[in-house]
Amino acid sequence: MSQLKNDRYLRALQCLPVDYTPVWIMRQAGRYLPEYRQLRLTAGSFMNLCQTPELACEVTLQPLKRFDLDAAIIFSDILTIPDAMGLGLHFETGEGPKFIKPIINVTDIKQLPIPDPEQSLKYVMDAIRLTRKELDGKVPLIGFSGSPWTLATYMIEGGSSKSFTKIKKMMYSNPKALHLLLEKLANSVALYLNAQIKAGAQSIMIFDTWGGVLSHQSYQEFSLYYMQMIISELIRGTKSADMLSYVPVTLFTKGGGLWLEPIRQTGCDAIGVDWTVDLNKIKSKGQIAIQGNLDPSVLYADKSTIESNVEAVLTEYGYHNGHIFNLGHGILQDIPVEHVQHFIHAVHQQSKRFHCD
Amino acid sequence: MSQLKNDRYLRALQCLPVDYTPVWIMRQAGRYLPEYRQLRLTAGSFMNLCQTPELACEVTLQPLKRFDLDAAIIFSDILTIPDAMGLGLHFETGEGPKFIKPIINVTDIKQLPIPDPEQSLKYVMDAIRLTRKELDGKVPLIGFSGSPWTLATYMIEGGSSKSFTKIKKMMYSNPKALHLLLEKLANSVALYLNAQIKAGAQSIMIFDTWGGVLSHQSYQEFSLYYMQMIISELIRGTKSADMLSYVPVTLFTKGGGLWLEPIRQTGCDAIGVDWTVDLNKIKSKGQIAIQGNLDPSVLYADKSTIESNVEAVLTEYGYHNGHIFNLGHGILQDIPVEHVQHFIHAVHQQSKRFHCD
Repeated sequence: MSQLKNDRYLRALQCLPVDYTPVWIMRQAGRYLPEYRQLRLTAGSFMNLCQTPELACEVTLQPLKRFDLDAAIIFSDILTIPDAMGLGLHFETGEGPKFIKPIINVTDIKQLPIPDPEQSLKYVMDAIRLTRKELDGKVPLIGFSGSPWTLATYMIEGGSSKSFTKIKKMMYSNPKALHLLLEKLANSVALYLNAQIKAGAQSIMIFDTWGGVLSHQSYQEFSLYYMQMIISELIRGTKSADMLSYVPVTLFTKGGGLWLEPIRQTGCDAIGVDWTVDLNKIKSKGQIAIQGNLDPSVLYADKSTIESNVEAVLTEYGYHNGHIFNLGHGILQDIPVEHVQHFIHAVHQQSKRFHCD
Repeated sequence: MSQLKNDRYLRALQCLPVDYTPVWIMRQAGRYLPEYRQLRLTAGSFMNLCQTPELACEVTLQPLKRFDLDAAIIFSDILTIPDAMGLGLHFETGEGPKFIKPIINVTDIKQLPIPDPEQSLKYVMDAIRLTRKELDGKVPLIGFSGSPWTLATYMIEGGSSKSFTKIKKMMYSNPKALHLLLEKLANSVALYLNAQIKAGAQSIMIFDTWGGVLSHQSYQEFSLYYMQMIISELIRGTKSADMLSYVPVTLFTKGGGLWLEPIRQTGCDAIGVDWTVDLNKIKSKGQIAIQGNLDPSVLYADKSTIESNVEAVLTEYGYHNGHIFNLGHGILQDIPVEHVQHFIHAVHQQSKRFHCD
């Protein structure tokens, strides 16, 4: 493998000094890019994009060609595991993800297989292997998965949800069944992420997009517990002078700002936070890395507003090590491309003065 | 006016001792009740229910006839003010609220009138006057309004929203225009709530349903600031031995669990919190009242699960004064009526031991 030319992201994840704050963007390979929309049209379906390693690699690299990003994230979907379990993932136009065979009862759960990542999810590993080769050490490559709780919401609701009625009914009336599902998912996710690491992922993100709809007790029991289980099973390597032999893990619970201390205790290397969190108030800064947290809607605004909001986030984080700049959630699909350019430039330029040791 | 027979709710709002924890339910008059659905069918439209004082009064009293609730809340909608401003509120089946004339630009904002509550919103005051009479002192009557920010989201988005794109675009690209709207709304809400107090509302709730979608800085600037303005203009009376001469105000920002201290500083009497908040961690308990915070989905479960979850909330709050039991958001429309009965009974029975002085 080629030597890594930009290690800011991996250094920041280990709270090591950097010359400026690294930045990447959740969903940086996506619909706001005209070249993505073009490729999506010719690819036939979204799933075909994900499942064809050459196309997934091309999409992964698209934002890197335009912007001075400090990391790439493999183009895929959080719902690949339930699809590999046989639920039949498909995307209806403007409707979000749907499953042909959602989970209805405990019998469905018992019958779910644990996917072998190098069989039914081999397309993800192939995309990672190819992308590592194509990146040629330009920036590190991030692998990812949805959290067990988040995957379970889609599997039980049958798709996106506003009120999470079905899974919450199961949670409060048949918690054992839900725990069985979450345990299977945790096992599957651990295998999946370890395979991604083996294929070349240099850092791991766990997206707990829907953990924030839980009560504080239920969050610990039904979401955090299983993320901790996954983290304990990941083969991350060891921290050493050769920073690159270690694969850091970032845990992002959208709406989880009240639970940063229990999240930290999972043993993750970084916590993703959304824009409701005041970075100034995070007590463990410098001990654990923090990713975030600009409101994605700021990118609708003009250059000077983007700059002043970037400045506000940098100032809140202050002079500690361990900040990875990002939005607090995925980039919105109608953001102008030149605003993204301004944003990344602003993070790099304005952050220099916070790294002057 | 008749003497108040049950003052637990008003006492708890002032952090005074009570014999057991008072309970009411957000949206307690609503679709989960068969008698509501029956009346809704014959009333023609939802707005007709709200705008006919006899019907609004009847709906307000429906849950009080079934359950041993400690407060009534006037049946109305949070969007009565924008409707009175001329935006044309209507409800499409299964679609939520819509406005015929949403706010598009600053000219629209400049032309908005400040509604005279005893003119275009007189139907609400008439409903309050009638309901006070019908209640005959059984329990106190709560008046309410949406927060300026929450009203503005509907007025600018044209209805419900998932991403709040239009209002956030305005917030980041033309904040002056949005501030002009929010100021008009704050003035209107203050007049509206003072008229409700004059008509007989014995306590006030401000629902900031969508404050939680803001960043922590924007929350203070675009939502909390205007709620504070309203609170400072309310004619609440004075706290005295005669507890009934004071009208306490509860401020509820859904998803605002990280901001309880700034919320407390508005001068409100109680803070509503959702189920993401661990009541055990609220430092100001006993100094300010807290309303909440059971996950509404718990009411899907069986009797013993409802009881254990009620117990968990009571135990977290502990032996302090100032707890008003409620769900962390409105009751869901498919909750079985007998579960609501269990819930209220559980709160009353199980809370006695926390009030043993």
